[in-house]
Amino acid sequence: MSELRWGPVDQQWVIFAPERAGLFLADPEAQLPDDPASCPLCPENVDAAAKTIYLHPAEGDWRVRVVANRYPALHIEGDLKPTGVGLYDRMNGVGAHEVVIESRDHHRPLAELSVEEITGVLATCRARLVDLRRDLRLRYVTIFKNHGGDAGALLAHGHTQIIATPFIPTLPRAELIHARDHFLHKERCLFCDLIHQEEIHSRRVVRNDDAYLTFCRYASPHPFEMWVMPRRHQHDFALLTDGDLTLFAAALKDALRRLNAVLGEPAYNFALKTAPSPHPRPGRPNDWSTIELDYHWHLEIIPRLTRPAGFEWATGISINPTPPETAADYLRRA
Amino acid sequence: MSELRWGPVDQQWVIFAPERAGLFLADPEAQLPDDPASCPLCPENVDAAAKTIYLHPAEGDWRVRVVANRYPALHIEGDLKPTGVGLYDRMNGVGAHEVVIESRDHHRPLAELSVEEITGVLATCRARLVDLRRDLRLRYVTIFKNHGGDAGALLAHGHTQIIATPFIPTLPRAELIHARDHFLHKERCLFCDLIHQEEIHSRRVVRNDDAYLTFCRYASPHPFEMWVMPRRHQHDFALLTDGDLTLFAAALKDALRRLNAVLGEPAYNFALKTAPSPHPRPGRPNDWSTIELDYHWHLEIIPRLTRPAGFEWATGISINPTPPETAADYLRRA
Repeated sequence: MSELRWGPVDQQWVIFAPERAGLFLADPEAQLPDDPASCPLCPENVDAAAKTIYLHPAEGDWRVRVVANRYPALHIEGDLKPTGVGLYDRMNGVGAHEVVIESRDHHRPLAELSVEEITGVLATCRARLVDLRRDLRLRYVTIFKNHGGDAGALLAHGHTQIIATPFIPTLPRAELIHARDHFLHKERCLFCDLIHQEEIHSRRVVRNDDAYLTFCRYASPHPFEMWVMPRRHQHDFALLTDGDLTLFAAALKDALRRLNAVLGEPAYNFALKTAPSPHPRPGRPNDWSTIELDYHWHLEIIPRLTRPAGFEWATGISINPTPPETAADYLRRA
Repeated sequence: MSELRWGPVDQQWVIFAPERAGLFLADPEAQLPDDPASCPLCPENVDAAAKTIYLHPAEGDWRVRVVANRYPALHIEGDLKPTGVGLYDRMNGVGAHEVVIESRDHHRPLAELSVEEITGVLATCRARLVDLRRDLRLRYVTIFKNHGGDAGALLAHGHTQIIATPFIPTLPRAELIHARDHFLHKERCLFCDLIHQEEIHSRRVVRNDDAYLTFCRYASPHPFEMWVMPRRHQHDFALLTDGDLTLFAAALKDALRRLNAVLGEPAYNFALKTAPSPHPRPGRPNDWSTIELDYHWHLEIIPRLTRPAGFEWATGISINPTPPETAADYLRRA
């Protein structure tokens, strides 16, 4: 069983997941197992390999399928039982860890799916986000992707992952607070202001359509990092209409195409950053009842070109060799 | 020339170092170049390869030598010129980036040096810390080590690195604030309290002598993470006497020996976390004039067994497969 622990020096939650011990010495440089016959995400094996949570479409042959992670970081059963242990804190490792299988075809990565197929993947993520939020124990849902061994993927078959945690994690929490403070001072959304400034100083813009802006941000910690952000204010990914999803799928496909063209199909991660669950904690007033409205959902894409070493790990500060203006120039022309 | 940039969403400084672009696609899995004839840190090549900053001892053959990093993240020349750029901030990339060559011998890693030799390395780090603090532009000195390609090392010859920044980086700053808040409430040092609790609950203690406690912390983000901490309160590594240094060198050597014995000579990082420079900013009252006294210096050692993937990067939350009690049990018996 997983456990959540918190220490007073860095004041961060850590997930202890002993079931994942078999994975942690895996060599990420090794070729990912690429035989559909033994792939647990392929249609012929998935029934036996993992519990199915969601099918898209619900009737007929599935095109996107959500299954339970076989080595879950967190478990959906049980109570949190938050406990103080002297200076420390602990909770049971309650949460969700799901795998979104993006296609039936072992050999078609996300970037090669059609806009319609990507829309199906995104609609599935939206459905899981909405459903997981019904669980009052869970406070935040992280939707992310590891593509390629260097990015932490352990399977070659295209998949996105979802982890729901009973707390708002450190970085989304900091961003929420910064966005709220900005709004309190200025009556404007921080991210809308960012879009406005980027549109004027277009040297970092990669692509701009009516609905979505793709750009390399000014102080990006990672080389060739790209953000895809809705141009009109929208705090929550769960609110997207099907039409919004199709436009977003086109912007995402375009971003991945550019990344592959410029960097030769690199390993990459992406994360969908959205507002936290709007419901209050049971029995408590909702101290986040308006803060989520000040957020502005977006997708962050990072090709894995550098690795954090001692300095980055000790300080939290990144060293980026590529100015975003240079990266955007390459990506724009791709 | 390097540049420092700050963005309003994550509110972190990022170092842009275009001179390091040649390094960033290097394959960290490749064998580190292991031919002393071409090693820039070996005695016969070091004069031509890099500017010397410090020699230990000052007279006769050096045993430890500090040189300028050939691909510096930050440069010692120039003014900061902090400037607002709309929502963003920038400064010139002023700072220091030095390499401490731990031994003349290409083939002797730090763990294999004698306690006396390690004391010499630590005395050199102390001297550089004291000297860099004389520069009023610099606010924090990070002393860290990358050992092995997986830990970000680009050279096989044993070396430690020093980066001085014109700001206190995110993580040390957070720890300082947490330590100050603890002291304000309780009139006690947070880290001294931690030591007290660890000594009672000794399941996480690896080694304990009169001067230093080695333990795996309760909420360690990384498997087999070890901290070596002075048992009596001491906020600043610069204050160590030569006698303190020898005892610390013995504790460090012991920790590395245990790590190598249990994990088979893994790649590892360490970082020396100490109080920030005590001097005020020029022309400003010193808002950190007492906060540094609430810190408690220590060394953090992390073997590189896992890699951050999408979830860790997006949330700041680590997934650790190994409880510290299990890790400490292995390390204690090694």
